[in-house]
Amino acid sequence: MIGLGPGGEDIAARLARGGWSVLAVDEHLVGGECPYYGCIPSKMMLHESRRADASWARVAQRIREEATDHWDDGVAVERLLGTGATFVHGRAEIAGGPATGPASDGTSVTVTPNDGGARQTWTARRAVVLNTGSESVRIPVPGLPDAVTWTHRDVVTAETLPASLAIVGGGPVGCELAQALTGFGVRVSLLVRGGRLLSGEAPEAGELVAERFRSEGIDVRTGTEISGVQAGEASRYETSHGIPASAGPVDLELTTGDRLTVDRVLLATGRVPRDPVDVDDWCRVLDGAAAEGGQPVPGRYAIGDMTGVGPFTHTSMAQAAVVADQLLAGAAPRPFPRHAVPRVTYTDPEVAAVGLSEGEARKAVEHQGGDASEVHVVRVDLGASSRGWIDEVRGHLTLVARAEGNADEKGTGVGTGPGAGTGTSGGVLVGAAVVGPHAGEILGALTVAVHARVPLAELARIPWAYPTLHRSIGDAVAQFGSDVIGAESAAGPAS
Amino acid sequence: MIGLGPGGEDIAARLARGGWSVLAVDEHLVGGECPYYGCIPSKMMLHESRRADASWARVAQRIREEATDHWDDGVAVERLLGTGATFVHGRAEIAGGPATGPASDGTSVTVTPNDGGARQTWTARRAVVLNTGSESVRIPVPGLPDAVTWTHRDVVTAETLPASLAIVGGGPVGCELAQALTGFGVRVSLLVRGGRLLSGEAPEAGELVAERFRSEGIDVRTGTEISGVQAGEASRYETSHGIPASAGPVDLELTTGDRLTVDRVLLATGRVPRDPVDVDDWCRVLDGAAAEGGQPVPGRYAIGDMTGVGPFTHTSMAQAAVVADQLLAGAAPRPFPRHAVPRVTYTDPEVAAVGLSEGEARKAVEHQGGDASEVHVVRVDLGASSRGWIDEVRGHLTLVARAEGNADEKGTGVGTGPGAGTGTSGGVLVGAAVVGPHAGEILGALTVAVHARVPLAELARIPWAYPTLHRSIGDAVAQFGSDVIGAESAAGPAS
Repeated sequence: MIGLGPGGEDIAARLARGGWSVLAVDEHLVGGECPYYGCIPSKMMLHESRRADASWARVAQRIREEATDHWDDGVAVERLLGTGATFVHGRAEIAGGPATGPASDGTSVTVTPNDGGARQTWTARRAVVLNTGSESVRIPVPGLPDAVTWTHRDVVTAETLPASLAIVGGGPVGCELAQALTGFGVRVSLLVRGGRLLSGEAPEAGELVAERFRSEGIDVRTGTEISGVQAGEASRYETSHGIPASAGPVDLELTTGDRLTVDRVLLATGRVPRDPVDVDDWCRVLDGAAAEGGQPVPGRYAIGDMTGVGPFTHTSMAQAAVVADQLLAGAAPRPFPRHAVPRVTYTDPEVAAVGLSEGEARKAVEHQGGDASEVHVVRVDLGASSRGWIDEVRGHLTLVARAEGNADEKGTGVGTGPGAGTGTSGGVLVGAAVVGPHAGEILGALTVAVHARVPLAELARIPWAYPTLHRSIGDAVAQFGSDVIGAESAAGPAS
Repeated sequence: MIGLGPGGEDIAARLARGGWSVLAVDEHLVGGECPYYGCIPSKMMLHESRRADASWARVAQRIREEATDHWDDGVAVERLLGTGATFVHGRAEIAGGPATGPASDGTSVTVTPNDGGARQTWTARRAVVLNTGSESVRIPVPGLPDAVTWTHRDVVTAETLPASLAIVGGGPVGCELAQALTGFGVRVSLLVRGGRLLSGEAPEAGELVAERFRSEGIDVRTGTEISGVQAGEASRYETSHGIPASAGPVDLELTTGDRLTVDRVLLATGRVPRDPVDVDDWCRVLDGAAAEGGQPVPGRYAIGDMTGVGPFTHTSMAQAAVVADQLLAGAAPRPFPRHAVPRVTYTDPEVAAVGLSEGEARKAVEHQGGDASEVHVVRVDLGASSRGWIDEVRGHLTLVARAEGNADEKGTGVGTGPGAGTGTSGGVLVGAAVVGPHAGEILGALTVAVHARVPLAELARIPWAYPTLHRSIGDAVAQFGSDVIGAESAAGPAS
């Protein structure tokens, strides 16, 4: 087990408890980015920032002491050792590289311990599972000194905040940090190269978030890059929360010609896999690109960010189950359900999506030799629902359906599943997106529907609880019309 | 169409637009309780009460002017007339009573207009649809003068609030109003005859809500009834929001021996159907009780609170679709999905449930001749999930499953559906409950799962978005264990 993110830790523990001899190696913290620098601390910041008495000191202390134990993975290591696994904090090298499987006599794994101990070589006889994660992209900005350049890790570990901050990057991380830090009184400028925030989501999502951000005082600048830097003298600032910040000011020249003076620059310019590999739906490493017909390498598996399936803790955890179920006798292995991967950005409003966008769905249908006109999209205004009107909500819900959704094609998210084979002929949802309050929780209903390919005809007759926001799913489904929804063995009452 | 609640209004409009001759009669407001006195204004109060600058005057004005047009249904009547229906504000009497269907030459319906106009008799040749709703139970309390006795209608229409209020009844209405009015500075005592709040829900729900209520200063008294009353002199009070209240104080003697002095007593002691009838899943009125094998009366339908299926707007709306689809040529009629009716109480924490409780599920299985031991229940602490820990959430999620859930029985919620017939042999959810923040939105995922009978084996492999609260569904499903979840045609990868 090379790399121990949330999924890798889970596999190592399950296999060790299942009687396997497990060697687990990670150069960094056991548990990975999520608990120490990612999901957990960032959501803690967001939660605290929304309190009326938001205090950076309080949340920073809770992150340090309760969430990360001062970024010490001792407890996680103990837990892992308790399963019977062998663990080394160190760097592992595999003979032949990641896409080469165990030879008949096993694969050599050479481990260089972090503590300077002797290198050791081990032989993996059954399998090598990779979970080496991703790392931040650090874009070079001429003249930008390290002293004023932060990544999300520096924010998470900061005891004090700068008075002002330029965040470079308008993706989920940049957006969440922008809103959280604004809640603690930091003056935030959000510099986005492209035309909008959250470019991976529907345009309306980024627009709604940008509008909210601006109303909260965030200086959102799209179509902007840093073209030059003048770092000034170090000096001390106080944020509006009275937190001393130690960096000096830095003058940024922007490609728009504007200038901007801030105390820090935070790079939220995305993450890339440390060791990218392609995998199939069983998380088996392929010996080439999936698109070019790469074949599974015997005994070689990979999970998590490095697989490119979706850089989410929930992806890694679900992939871990796929791998562990395959390797453990007795478990019933099932492939990873790639057609219904959800994602949520926890800004206010939340931005959530699952499955395919309209464009992705059309491509998938055409790839199967189908007609892209089978893909239908509806969008409803959450504010026009009863609950939306009451709570003065801004947001919307988008559904992507395939009219002939049960036509049964594998792995694309368009076909198969419990709805297939039941004599139904109607449409199914292949994707959905929600922007608005509690969008991440509303997404639950859509995740079940897309994952299990619940026929639209079934969704159409659910008496969704009134007046919830998720009741808008019913309004949206009704808009598809009967030709898309299809008739599911409808029959009048026996009388 | 006799009675025009949310569902009745919908049927009348659809049939009229479909070319039918429709006579629609309602003695009260077109649209029913929900928009004028129920769901909408109560949720508006709750929403406003949670604002930092909560103002009764502001929400009362919005209810009066924007939501209810001063409790005037003129717009709704115009909209109905626009469909081609005939409408009379008045009282309708049916020859032979509600459970007698149209004779071969039609059913006589005699209408007495509210405005004193002449009574008229009409003949319904195709169908009579009833939607006469429910009314508040007013319990008699000796010595309690009308001046100090309110129902929810009086709250909704009040321009000013009393300084103190005793609410009698700890059901959803009593609880929602207790919390909302407390948010406007009213000193609220909640008098509950039974041992806990929300007695229709799991005990833990009522306990959690009571705990929260007490922490907000609500005087929650269980096991308590009013035994005597001494009304004092009328005088004027001011609430903490500076709202003058005009009622005088009243001294209540309680069965516990305690005394309580309040300005008003609000009766939230439940609602009962005005004209109770039993219906089948097609909303056809039965000529006797369903339990005693009552038979459908030709041409006679009923929807809404009077049917006892669940006194919710969403029930009435879904029943309206069942009836309209049957009556309109071209639509594909489907029965009402009684197995998956959701309900939400919008207190903080929210209390939400769908389908069967553990006890109901055991009874349903035994009623089918099955073994009650097929019913399994798991409960997870929302606070123990990642998001729950981050947000310091209190709450829990309960799932009720039937191990042999696809055994195919009709109408009980235990069997049939998209999951059936797919060669699956595992368990399905037959009920679920959530208490906690956003419980009403989390319920969406559970509503889809219970409604569509998604196999537990499918739910078990969903990569629920991390860190949402609804991800706890996955943790709960995993607790059922493989004997309950069952194996769904599991197969290893083709290699």
